Amino acid sequence: MNSAAFLKDFHHVATIGATANSGVDRQAATAEDAKTRDWFAAQVRDAGWELRVDGIGNMFGLLEWTPGAPYVLIGSHLDSQPLGGRFDGAYGVVAALHAARRLDAEVAEGGTAPRFNLAVVNWFNEEGGRFAPSIMGSSVFAGLLQREQMLDVPDLSGTTVRDALGAIGYLGTAVGPEVAGYAEIHIEQGRILEREGIAIGLVDSSWYTQKLDIEVLGEQSHTGATAMADRHDALVAASKIILMVHDVTNDFAEGALVSSVGQLTLEPNSPIVVARRVHLVADLRSGGPDIVKSARAKLIADIEVLAQEHNIKVNVKDFDVRPIRRFPEAGLELADKVAADLGLSSRRLQTMAGHDSVAMNTVAPSIMLFVPSVDGVSHCEREFTTDADMVTGLDMLTGVARELVAGALINAQALPAAALA
Amino acid sequence: MNSAAFLKDFHHVATIGATANSGVDRQAATAEDAKTRDWFAAQVRDAGWELRVDGIGNMFGLLEWTPGAPYVLIGSHLDSQPLGGRFDGAYGVVAALHAARRLDAEVAEGGTAPRFNLAVVNWFNEEGGRFAPSIMGSSVFAGLLQREQMLDVPDLSGTTVRDALGAIGYLGTAVGPEVAGYAEIHIEQGRILEREGIAIGLVDSSWYTQKLDIEVLGEQSHTGATAMADRHDALVAASKIILMVHDVTNDFAEGALVSSVGQLTLEPNSPIVVARRVHLVADLRSGGPDIVKSARAKLIADIEVLAQEHNIKVNVKDFDVRPIRRFPEAGLELADKVAADLGLSSRRLQTMAGHDSVAMNTVAPSIMLFVPSVDGVSHCEREFTTDADMVTGLDMLTGVARELVAGALINAQALPAAALA
Repeated sequence: MNSAAFLKDFHHVATIGATANSGVDRQAATAEDAKTRDWFAAQVRDAGWELRVDGIGNMFGLLEWTPGAPYVLIGSHLDSQPLGGRFDGAYGVVAALHAARRLDAEVAEGGTAPRFNLAVVNWFNEEGGRFAPSIMGSSVFAGLLQREQMLDVPDLSGTTVRDALGAIGYLGTAVGPEVAGYAEIHIEQGRILEREGIAIGLVDSSWYTQKLDIEVLGEQSHTGATAMADRHDALVAASKIILMVHDVTNDFAEGALVSSVGQLTLEPNSPIVVARRVHLVADLRSGGPDIVKSARAKLIADIEVLAQEHNIKVNVKDFDVRPIRRFPEAGLELADKVAADLGLSSRRLQTMAGHDSVAMNTVAPSIMLFVPSVDGVSHCEREFTTDADMVTGLDMLTGVARELVAGALINAQALPAAALA
Repeated sequence: MNSAAFLKDFHHVATIGATANSGVDRQAATAEDAKTRDWFAAQVRDAGWELRVDGIGNMFGLLEWTPGAPYVLIGSHLDSQPLGGRFDGAYGVVAALHAARRLDAEVAEGGTAPRFNLAVVNWFNEEGGRFAPSIMGSSVFAGLLQREQMLDVPDLSGTTVRDALGAIGYLGTAVGPEVAGYAEIHIEQGRILEREGIAIGLVDSSWYTQKLDIEVLGEQSHTGATAMADRHDALVAASKIILMVHDVTNDFAEGALVSSVGQLTLEPNSPIVVARRVHLVADLRSGGPDIVKSARAKLIADIEVLAQEHNIKVNVKDFDVRPIRRFPEAGLELADKVAADLGLSSRRLQTMAGHDSVAMNTVAPSIMLFVPSVDGVSHCEREFTTDADMVTGLDMLTGVARELVAGALINAQALPAAALA
């Protein structure tokens, strides 16, 4: 199969929004995101497929082999983190385009249409760096988030999703296709496959995750003229909260819980003014829901004590709570067989990161595949996966999609959105 | 004397850029700052005085009684902190306008011109909240900062002083007047006068202050998929530095040192990305230079240890170092006599906050006066000084200015800019 054309396309896409250190910066609905979208649209049109853009900016390239039949979707996302890596998301979209081309050629040659049609998808705003929450486009598509509410979400400068998508011409009006199944390939963003020398990861479940929206309200005052004892410094209290969020992982077994504060804004943010308000977002993730719940309870109790000690107010709100979601066993067995047929080693694993497939798995049987990440690093310019591993993954995705359009998972069930671990 | 007209003007100015909780938000060279500038310009023109705007946005209203004679300057600044108080700066400018009106009327009545002319001044960007460093306009006027360099200073959105002043029409071309002396009245921003029931503070010296520009360089990575042990989280390290800056005050006698971090920016500032870079500004102030120097040395040593522990890079640069500057003894004695003649209690004190008078004192003998602040709070909406105290201060400033234009400090010397405590 033609892997050179795939690699050429992949490395071309990596030039769009390219950064000085081999990364990309293509945050959702920016000019750079628009360029990759234009490239994707041209690929779809050049292949003779129908292009649809829905009301939250998701893009679909439709291969209709059997008029009226539902579609198997394959794809990922072309947006990136600020100074993100070339592979996260883009690999899955470019691989899906090439898998679709291969299958389209097979169908044309074979002369018989598969049971289901195929569509390649580029989901809007998987990263959530500019507009929270992440996994926005696929979650709206899956009915897990409300479209109108998401269109009103502002970035830090106050621009809404609606205005940003409108400005780049990707606030569509089409309705996405009826879905019979979903498959996605992605870099692992961890070290398990690399360490064990395994070609393909089969994701059996996602981690339990949740965020805490934390607002620290102190009192603004003059840094020079206000005695230390008279201050209610929101940033000093926020710093202690950041360290609490970090240190709470030590209460659990190594690797059982990850936590972080990645977003913080400070008001008034003046060098000679004691801060009146700090807003920050904490992120908690674990394979065990009880671990997250226990860490959250400890943080809330500790924050309450801190607020009293500092005589300031701290508002804490839960948001973006994502239960463990299991991918269907039938899909895992199918992927295992495809890998074996291709002579590829594979193993099951959990994903700590969120993915569009986790949202899609609530509306259709979904298969999530990983290829190895060098050093396990991700969301940074140093993110890397070899050409050989990417080509192997393309073969794997093609094989899985071939089975899915043939109806291999016709008896599998999507996971109910409300199903908790 | 007509104190009602003064109070009417003061409370009118407080409506420009007024905030919901009785404060003002008039950061340097914003639309709100422009409105107070327009008001100031109209006051100067209506009084028949000459208006000059210099190349860093300082505004002068000139009362030329004796052609060719140098000028005594009186004034302060109309810009504020974000969500700042009504009194800080604006009180001194409005009081100076009214003191000048009173003296102008006296000169017209008396028929003999004083030795020096008088000018009312509104200094550009005393606060430094939008453009660092603070005390910018008076420092350029005094030759302590370079005009061209200051015009290139950007705010957090990248707009330079040059563009911001140009946009509001206050990047002037005039040269300020030749200076024979300077007087400024300001709220104390501390609790000494209130606690002791004293009407007027006579500032004998400024505190030693310095800032540290601290850049924390970690590595960007995925919050979910990166193990805690593999992270180089710039925000966790920065939080520890913020607490170090706070806690270093405990190494010294109570009240001997104040410190703070009031400005911080985070990159990429995405909820699901471990921060790669945090930039923050620490502020250290003390009546004793050795205390600041000792605190700085401890912080730099502790930060070095921290950087090694976290395997990240921290760059620390000194900037905005301001030595203790003493106001001339002759000026203090003069002010003491004026207060006594008015039947006002007064005492000497140090200023922990920076003021335009500290810069002006390096080019001409300067007198800095305080009126009481309720609860000592400042740089916030809760800042407050009574009408009665403001009127008392206006009388005091008028008396001091009357003596200065008469030549009372003709034998006093300005403090050389290089003079350290």
